[in-house]
Parts: sequence; structure tokens; C-alpha cells
Amino acid sequence: MKGRVKNEAALAAKSKVFIVGAGPGAKDLISVRGMNALSEADIVFYDALVNPDILEHTSQDAEKVFVGKRCGRKVMEQSEINQRIIEAARSGKTVVRLKGGDPFVFGRGGEEALACRSAGISYEIIPGIPSAVGAAAYSGIPLTHRGTAASVAFITARDYKLTGKGRTLAGIAAAVDTLVIFMGGLQVREIANELTAGNISPKTPAAVISHGTLPEQKTVFGVLDNIADRVSAAALRTPMLIIIGQVADLGPLLGWFGAMKSAQSGLLLEAERYAGIRLLRSVDQ
Amino acid sequence: MKGRVKNEAALAAKSKVFIVGAGPGAKDLISVRGMNALSEADIVFYDALVNPDILEHTSQDAEKVFVGKRCGRKVMEQSEINQRIIEAARSGKTVVRLKGGDPFVFGRGGEEALACRSAGISYEIIPGIPSAVGAAAYSGIPLTHRGTAASVAFITARDYKLTGKGRTLAGIAAAVDTLVIFMGGLQVREIANELTAGNISPKTPAAVISHGTLPEQKTVFGVLDNIADRVSAAALRTPMLIIIGQVADLGPLLGWFGAMKSAQSGLLLEAERYAGIRLLRSVDQ
Repeated sequence: MKGRVKNEAALAAKSKVFIVGAGPGAKDLISVRGMNALSEADIVFYDALVNPDILEHTSQDAEKVFVGKRCGRKVMEQSEINQRIIEAARSGKTVVRLKGGDPFVFGRGGEEALACRSAGISYEIIPGIPSAVGAAAYSGIPLTHRGTAASVAFITARDYKLTGKGRTLAGIAAAVDTLVIFMGGLQVREIANELTAGNISPKTPAAVISHGTLPEQKTVFGVLDNIADRVSAAALRTPMLIIIGQVADLGPLLGWFGAMKSAQSGLLLEAERYAGIRLLRSVDQ
Repeated sequence: MKGRVKNEAALAAKSKVFIVGAGPGAKDLISVRGMNALSEADIVFYDALVNPDILEHTSQDAEKVFVGKRCGRKVMEQSEINQRIIEAARSGKTVVRLKGGDPFVFGRGGEEALACRSAGISYEIIPGIPSAVGAAAYSGIPLTHRGTAASVAFITARDYKLTGKGRTLAGIAAAVDTLVIFMGGLQVREIANELTAGNISPKTPAAVISHGTLPEQKTVFGVLDNIADRVSAAALRTPMLIIIGQVADLGPLLGWFGAMKSAQSGLLLEAERYAGIRLLRSVDQ
């Protein structure tokens, strides 16, 4: 019995957990370090937001365990995921916990790191490009832009009220230039209504990006007043990300990825006029 | 003359500008796609925030042009950088514009993309891990954490007031759970004073991270009341990043990188008590 305990302790000392951000979607938007961790993993726990192609970075004999949601239902509770990670590490395996975006931006990586720390398992956090940052780049929407936006906030549609007293959507939107709402696709209409009811101008530009950075990426542009109708008309699919603020207007001009290229021609005149104005405002000060 | 124009047009059609986020610092935190673009570049324009080791990803005969700040002075104005990028692309070169963090998060990538678009040069935006996201991961500070923080805002110390009417530091801090201030290291005292004067509790946890993700990373933890003194005492050096909010308290417990490991032992009791509380609050709902 004593021997077994000692052996387990020795295995645990060798093993390690890598909590890895897979990035926003495209297979090559994971970090070099994240890719290296994947290639050394004995076992990978991954969730639904991760592009399955990213698992190609793993070795052929690595075990891959899906722990995300399927048809809106959790395959596994967070506490069970934590337990599985720790068990795998204790058995001497190199574990990767692969998460969409970044582990510390709505990724629950903090909880998994706490579980590892409490269990005495050593771990490393490998950051990833947050989905919003990737989707913005691939939609031509600078989250900040000189003269236009100098502050940006990230929230999720569901949780922003849970912490902090008296949080309102309009209050957050009013406090920053650019508001990014993760996982808000299904509530676009509700969100737009709540913002305009809270004195955010119905003419505030907005964009909704579906499947950001993936070949099937689609972006719908509008203003708070019409964005929900446009999203419905375009039949966008989750995961979706909402960007609200003046910078959303730059998307039709700066978009360069996939279908956006061809969509630009019709907007070019308007866009160039806009660019002219913005460029004047963005010269060196 | 006509022939020359035609030739230039043909060259421009072949050439491309990649506006690439180098990530937060560590050489292997650039994306795989960013690394590939670097390896194919004929010329790289890079700024001061980029870890020079990242240039090792370039081919040996690539030209490397420094366009950042030296001793606080700009080597080149933004308009000149734009012009140099466009000239290089027009001469048929594959150009990488390499920027610290992400091009669209305080990176002025939008301006460079606009300049390319206006000049008819094709470009691609390759996102990067924002410096704040990398520094948070390497300091063990989850920017969001279930039950503790469900919203996060990014600002720079200098520019947050320039856009939007009546922006105040305390107003932004009150609107979100976690406030991250880029490039604010030299103004920590000013920032802390302004926040507490604006009714943000002086006991609000804060962390200042110097050289995030690099071997020389140092993190100082405290509360608004004492953080400036602690930063002075530790003689932290720029670039620095400030994280304000309850999540900063998790750093001493969750930090895993470099010197933080050994710093933990003294804090472990306190940290474990803290973790106990947080874990109770973060079970599945």
C-alpha cells in the first residue's frame, strides 16, 4: 500500500497538465507553444468550440476525449472534467485541456487551474487568441482604432449580470467605445432592444460574426435598429459574436477574408468616403 | 512609361502585406500562421514591443526594419511606416508588418490596413494573443472567473479619454469586473488615486505585470491603496500592464511561471483559504 502511494506520487511529479487556448477557430491560429503541447500530449480533453482540425496537431496515438456540449447538453459537468484531468495526470500522462479561444477569457481555465493546484498537479496555462480578437481580425473590424475607439469590453450575453451590483447592458456599452458580446447570437434582438431602451443610439453600428476565422465565416453589418432583422435574413448560425460600436462600420471596407472580398465592391464608394474621414482623424498627434 | 506602369501593377498584384500580431512576448506565443508569414517575408517592419527573438522565424535573407520607439522617441511616424509598407509591396515584395500583441487591440493595424486598401495593395490581418491575455495567463490571473468576474475592459492609460464623451477611469472601472490598463506602468500612482477618488474601493485588488511571458517577467500584487508603493519598491520596468479587480487576488495562488512558483509557498495558506471560497462559488449552476 505504501509502495503504491509512493509510485503514484512519482507519477504525479512527472506528469503535467497544459491548459491550452486553441484560438478562434482556424487551425493555424493556435500558438506555436500550444501546437507543441498538443503534439506531446498523451490525452486531450477538448470542447465543442474547438475546430476538430486542430486535433490534427496531436500524435496519432493520443487519446482524444470530447467534454463539451452536444445539442445544447453538456456531455460532462465541470467538476467531472476537473476530476478526469487530475486522474489522467496522476496516472503519469501528459494532459492537454484544449479550449476554444483563450482559457482565461470566458474559458473557465481558472477553475481547472485551481483544481490542479488543489490536487498538487503541476500545470501551465498556454494562452490563445480570444475568439473575438480572431473574428475581428478576419472581419476587418479593429477593436480599437485611433480617433474612433480607445476602449473595448468583453462580456457574454448570459453572465454579465451575475457579478457586480446593478450591471446593465447599456451601462457597460456607455462606458466603453467597443462592446463585444460572446455567445450572444441567439439573443441579438433582445440585446439590441435592451441597449436602445437604455439610451444607446439605435444608429450605433453593429456587426454579428458567425464562425469567425473559419471558411464558413459570415458577417452581417448594420445598426442596432436593424441588425437583428439582418441576422435573421442571413440565417446566421452559432457560434456568433456581436461587436457594437463605431468600429463595426470599418468592416465592409477592411474585410479581406473569403466572401467579404467580393461583398466589398458595392460598398466601396461609401467606404472610401468613410476611410477619408477616419484617416484625417488618425494622423499622428 | 506605359510599360513601367504596367510592370508596377503586375508586381503589386503579386505582392501582399501581412499585418501580423507577434503575441505577448514569448517567441512561441505567436500563431502558427503568423510564424509561417514571417518565414515567407522578404521584408519585415517591426516595432519595439516585439521580442527580437521572434525575428528568428524569418528567413536569413529577409530584410528587417525597426520602426518602433527608441528611448521614448519614434524612429518613424505612422504615415511614414504606411508609406514604406506600400512602397515595399509595390516593388513586389512579400511584406510582414509585425506588431506586439494583436494588430487590432491598440496596435494601429486598422490604420495600416486602410492605407493598404487605399493604395490597392492586398493584405491579410493575422491576429495575435493580446499582451494582456498573455500576461494574465503567465501570471495566473484569469481575466474572467466564474462567480468573480464576467466582464473585462481593455484601455490604455493615455488614450481612454480621447473618444466618447465624459469617459472617466472610475466610470469604466465601475462598469466592468476586471479592468486592464495597457501601457500604464509609469502612471500607476496617478491611476490608483484617480480610481479611489472616483469611489472605487481602495481595497480593490490590483496586479502590475512587467515583461509579461518573458523570462524576466515580474508581477507585483496589492490593492489600489498600496500597489504604487509596491511597484516602486520592486523597481518594475516597462512595458507594464495593470489588472484591477477581484481576479488579481488569484494570481499568487495560480501563478506557475518562473519566479512565481517559489513566491507561492508563503502565500499558500491564505491562497488555499481563498481558493476554498472561490471553488464553492464556482460549482456548476
